[in-house]
Amino acid sequence: MEFEDITPGPLLSEIDSPDDLKKLDPDQLVEVCDELRDFIIDTVSIHGGHFGASLGVIEMTVALHYVYDTPKDLVLWDVGHQAYGHKILTGRRENFHTNRKYGGLSGFPKRSESEYDTFGVGHSSTSISAALGMAVARDLDQSDKKVAAVIGDGAMTAGLAFEALNNAGAMNSDILVILNDNNMSIDPNVGALKEYLTEITTSKTFNKLRDEIYDMLGHFKSAGEKMRKVASKLEKAVTAAITPGGLFQALGFKYYGPVDGHNVDTMRRYLEDLKDIPGPKLLHAVTVKGKGFAPAEREQTKWHAQSSPFDKITGKQLDPDTKPKPPKYQHVFGEAIVELADENDRIVGITPAMPSGSSLWPMMKKYPERAFDVGIAEQHSITFAAGLAAEGKKAFAAIYSTFLQRAYDQVIHDVAIQKLPVVFCIDRAGLVGADGPTHHGLYDISYLRNVPNMIVSSPMNEEELRDMMYTASKYEDAAWAIRYPRGRATGMDYPEGFKDMEIGKGQKVRDGDEIAILSFGPFGNYVIEAADNLVEIGIDVGHFNMRFAKPLDTDLIDEICHSFEHIITIEDGTRLGGFGSAVTEYLADKPYHIPTTIMGVPDRIVEHGTQEELHAEVGLDPKGIQEKVQEVMKVHSLKT
Amino acid sequence: MEFEDITPGPLLSEIDSPDDLKKLDPDQLVEVCDELRDFIIDTVSIHGGHFGASLGVIEMTVALHYVYDTPKDLVLWDVGHQAYGHKILTGRRENFHTNRKYGGLSGFPKRSESEYDTFGVGHSSTSISAALGMAVARDLDQSDKKVAAVIGDGAMTAGLAFEALNNAGAMNSDILVILNDNNMSIDPNVGALKEYLTEITTSKTFNKLRDEIYDMLGHFKSAGEKMRKVASKLEKAVTAAITPGGLFQALGFKYYGPVDGHNVDTMRRYLEDLKDIPGPKLLHAVTVKGKGFAPAEREQTKWHAQSSPFDKITGKQLDPDTKPKPPKYQHVFGEAIVELADENDRIVGITPAMPSGSSLWPMMKKYPERAFDVGIAEQHSITFAAGLAAEGKKAFAAIYSTFLQRAYDQVIHDVAIQKLPVVFCIDRAGLVGADGPTHHGLYDISYLRNVPNMIVSSPMNEEELRDMMYTASKYEDAAWAIRYPRGRATGMDYPEGFKDMEIGKGQKVRDGDEIAILSFGPFGNYVIEAADNLVEIGIDVGHFNMRFAKPLDTDLIDEICHSFEHIITIEDGTRLGGFGSAVTEYLADKPYHIPTTIMGVPDRIVEHGTQEELHAEVGLDPKGIQEKVQEVMKVHSLKT
Repeated sequence: MEFEDITPGPLLSEIDSPDDLKKLDPDQLVEVCDELRDFIIDTVSIHGGHFGASLGVIEMTVALHYVYDTPKDLVLWDVGHQAYGHKILTGRRENFHTNRKYGGLSGFPKRSESEYDTFGVGHSSTSISAALGMAVARDLDQSDKKVAAVIGDGAMTAGLAFEALNNAGAMNSDILVILNDNNMSIDPNVGALKEYLTEITTSKTFNKLRDEIYDMLGHFKSAGEKMRKVASKLEKAVTAAITPGGLFQALGFKYYGPVDGHNVDTMRRYLEDLKDIPGPKLLHAVTVKGKGFAPAEREQTKWHAQSSPFDKITGKQLDPDTKPKPPKYQHVFGEAIVELADENDRIVGITPAMPSGSSLWPMMKKYPERAFDVGIAEQHSITFAAGLAAEGKKAFAAIYSTFLQRAYDQVIHDVAIQKLPVVFCIDRAGLVGADGPTHHGLYDISYLRNVPNMIVSSPMNEEELRDMMYTASKYEDAAWAIRYPRGRATGMDYPEGFKDMEIGKGQKVRDGDEIAILSFGPFGNYVIEAADNLVEIGIDVGHFNMRFAKPLDTDLIDEICHSFEHIITIEDGTRLGGFGSAVTEYLADKPYHIPTTIMGVPDRIVEHGTQEELHAEVGLDPKGIQEKVQEVMKVHSLKT
Repeated sequence: MEFEDITPGPLLSEIDSPDDLKKLDPDQLVEVCDELRDFIIDTVSIHGGHFGASLGVIEMTVALHYVYDTPKDLVLWDVGHQAYGHKILTGRRENFHTNRKYGGLSGFPKRSESEYDTFGVGHSSTSISAALGMAVARDLDQSDKKVAAVIGDGAMTAGLAFEALNNAGAMNSDILVILNDNNMSIDPNVGALKEYLTEITTSKTFNKLRDEIYDMLGHFKSAGEKMRKVASKLEKAVTAAITPGGLFQALGFKYYGPVDGHNVDTMRRYLEDLKDIPGPKLLHAVTVKGKGFAPAEREQTKWHAQSSPFDKITGKQLDPDTKPKPPKYQHVFGEAIVELADENDRIVGITPAMPSGSSLWPMMKKYPERAFDVGIAEQHSITFAAGLAAEGKKAFAAIYSTFLQRAYDQVIHDVAIQKLPVVFCIDRAGLVGADGPTHHGLYDISYLRNVPNMIVSSPMNEEELRDMMYTASKYEDAAWAIRYPRGRATGMDYPEGFKDMEIGKGQKVRDGDEIAILSFGPFGNYVIEAADNLVEIGIDVGHFNMRFAKPLDTDLIDEICHSFEHIITIEDGTRLGGFGSAVTEYLADKPYHIPTTIMGVPDRIVEHGTQEELHAEVGLDPKGIQEKVQEVMKVHSLKT
């Protein structure tokens, strides 16, 4: 089925903006929700995408755009996985099939894409902070626009969300937080807050108790002045006790709920009522991730996102590609950490809410007492790891490059300054593909290389990743970062077991003339391909797989300087301050001159697309390498 | 008065370790507290230091070391300002006068200094995370050691603390959090949590209400089976309502308190009782910052720390240095932001809990509706600023370099990717002096230079800081970071008003031969001094004040390359990935070779001392510059 065959329902096909939605009667909204849900399932079943989250907020989305005067009123979608319905209702229905494709719509809200996208997102838990900033701006401008943030219960566990609640509650600014409680992050949500919310939403006793108590208080009130006074105080206390959401009330928010987030009429009426209630308030809506698509409701983690076509009834993958594929780097990590933990009971594993994404789950299954999902809490994950390390454990923190940015101070202050030998297994390093700018892991080489007591390494293949992890597991003198990309490794056969890797030492991949290419990480495989192609046109480049950006293999570089006339460095990260810079820093004050060309991701925002498309766009693929080599050759021959 | 004259009291003088403390009777502890307090006041009145926080936890400190079996049991002091008493009781009494001095004791707990210092600190809000890590390690080791974290109410507002509470509450690990509630950060604490705690600690109605309600419930219980059942449910609900600390209970912690943190006997008995209560628990102790020193109790922000000798009774400064001094950079900022705000009502100011330290307070005073202290919440401060910017405000975030590390993801994800023109006024950039490694702002040049849509600049003096702020206030195309150091500016006369500064353009300070020094920031003044000294021995270096690390003034560098044979770069930050690297990256693939020497802070942890001592230690002072120039000259003459 092609996109042309995806026909929106009769109501949806007339909605080109929220103004069209507003023309409908309230009782037509249920139908709009059904059509919207079908349209999303139809499209994603062909084109892929994150959709569990969006299916869970269909009714909320329709109600918000029905009640609010968007884009004047401001709606913020935390993380942004939830925003598919929002995009479709705000003029992007006909482009929706380009979602997450190169040159197409972003998978997340994005200011440059639409005036309805008030704040760009991708990482979780930013919405309340940003909404508060917008509400304060609104107050300064004496405008009457409404500001609402929709945030999941998983995202609510991040410190940033708490900081924002704490500030908003005290500032008393008019802002609505809609807590989209589906009991999930990408993996099942964890933490005390989750248990607290579950208590609210599942406790049958709440309403019954409330009724009984008000009954009793009635007796008191009719029993004379003194009793009336006490009873009235008691009522206040009791109301606080039996109204759920005391946690949010303690932070200065009025709490409403829990309400059924899949009843569009309820949502609409609540939103209308809350428009007239000033100050900070929180509406607790209970939803089901993947609502309306049975396979996704059943297996929520699996159906968080889908990249290949599936049957929209059964969920079965269509034309599954059954030929064997190389393992993903994350799986190589997931397998190796278990093997290492088998041998060394000091090893512990930590992930901030990414057991599936980071493949820590095999260790969590085999060693539940030694592997920890701490929730969406990147800062805590690293300080927690530092605490474990301080007491003699060998802590492996499995975290995405872009999320480690959230724990940068913890890396410096709690790990590096104290020289604690925490190992950072940094997944999704480099250009990640369809998730785009918010998720590209482009900065870690430079933001870690500048920190003392930190080794920065990247493997070129499965075997090197395993050996780096093994060597790091025995290293006690400093922290160690191992970065590897999203996606598949080389498919090499690698030996069982592990072997030591010499720290700070690179490896000659091939000899050559004139130009030496120094690669850091899996891009080395592109260099191999490029070098093979270049040989065919008579150009013989040298290639060195450097493995370490820090410490740098300066012996090898000295050797290279004796045998080559030009160096090209290549890395899957920004070209500012990274591996290439390490090389130029080292060579800068040498008396001899080896011109050095740094190949890395340019200093601009790179949008989304497949990894291959993005590598090609920025010239970091075999073709780009070949062209760069030929360009350098030309300059040299001009010179001589 | 010299240190030799500071005699500890008779009990304190016998306490060389917590074991000695344990030999005393419980009723002698009051006397120990008095002596400890006197000893700290005596020492700090001569030698300076942070002491308000430590005076507030004297009784807690004595009780903890009396009840706990330290160092086997683990006590963590959040931030560490509070740890003076702890240091004195754990074998460091006789060295205590070296506190915060070059080569002396650290002002903070530090693992390498003592086995009693379980976790190094300096930044706030890490203690619960680290304690949880240690508690988990303890459980894995099947040890019975106790773990306690002492954290202030200000530190509790940071997201990291919340993330840790949320995780600890769910893990049910045995850990004690002592909430040291003094209603203060360095400045008065802000936020909803503060109001919540104040409600608990100041509400006289709590106990009275509780009594009245239990009375009434008694009536019910005697009124027949059905009523008894309802009343018993009611009792549970009411207990929750009228027991303070529901916020912490919601997060899975048992709550105890509030208790008087200055009653050592109370503290001792609570700690003893709590040792036998398993799981996560929080003891809420109410204290007074600066307790026992009247001037500090009265003016808590002023007395957070003192650097010069004062009269220990009146608090009056001894031998005050009355000769006029140059303004501090922070004051130049504080004055300029008000002047800019006078002219441009779009300008708003934000500080995370540092109105005094950052000098945002003049703006907060003059424009309270446009200047915000958001509490210890660095992440939120930046996303909040991004929200303001998204709605058209010109947001100036005033933040220390080392604290901006906490908001790195927010800088990238919420500001830079969206190209929001937030201005970062980064104070305490570079080596900060007595606060030491946790507070040195050494990484910002490299961790910001690698981010797209970000200008990175540093002024050489007051006038440049003002003009940079002015130019940034009108710049809408990207974010802008302006970094300046702790301490005094040059004392120059600068003109009233502001003028535009050309973005990405440096300035020739002096012509010269052979060697060009390119400075970034106030170290340019050291270069001027060094260059003047060098002229006297016949060496004439060129000097260029580059102002911008990004965009780099490549025109000027090209010019320099034509006229000089060697470049030296100098910056007040790590030599990896910073301004010097920007220069070497630019020159790397040029066909000509200008050897470039990067002068910056070496890639190791630099300890504490005065700024001058530290500059000298790492060779970044006029003498160091002169020596480096002579060294380079020698290499060149050897070559020729």
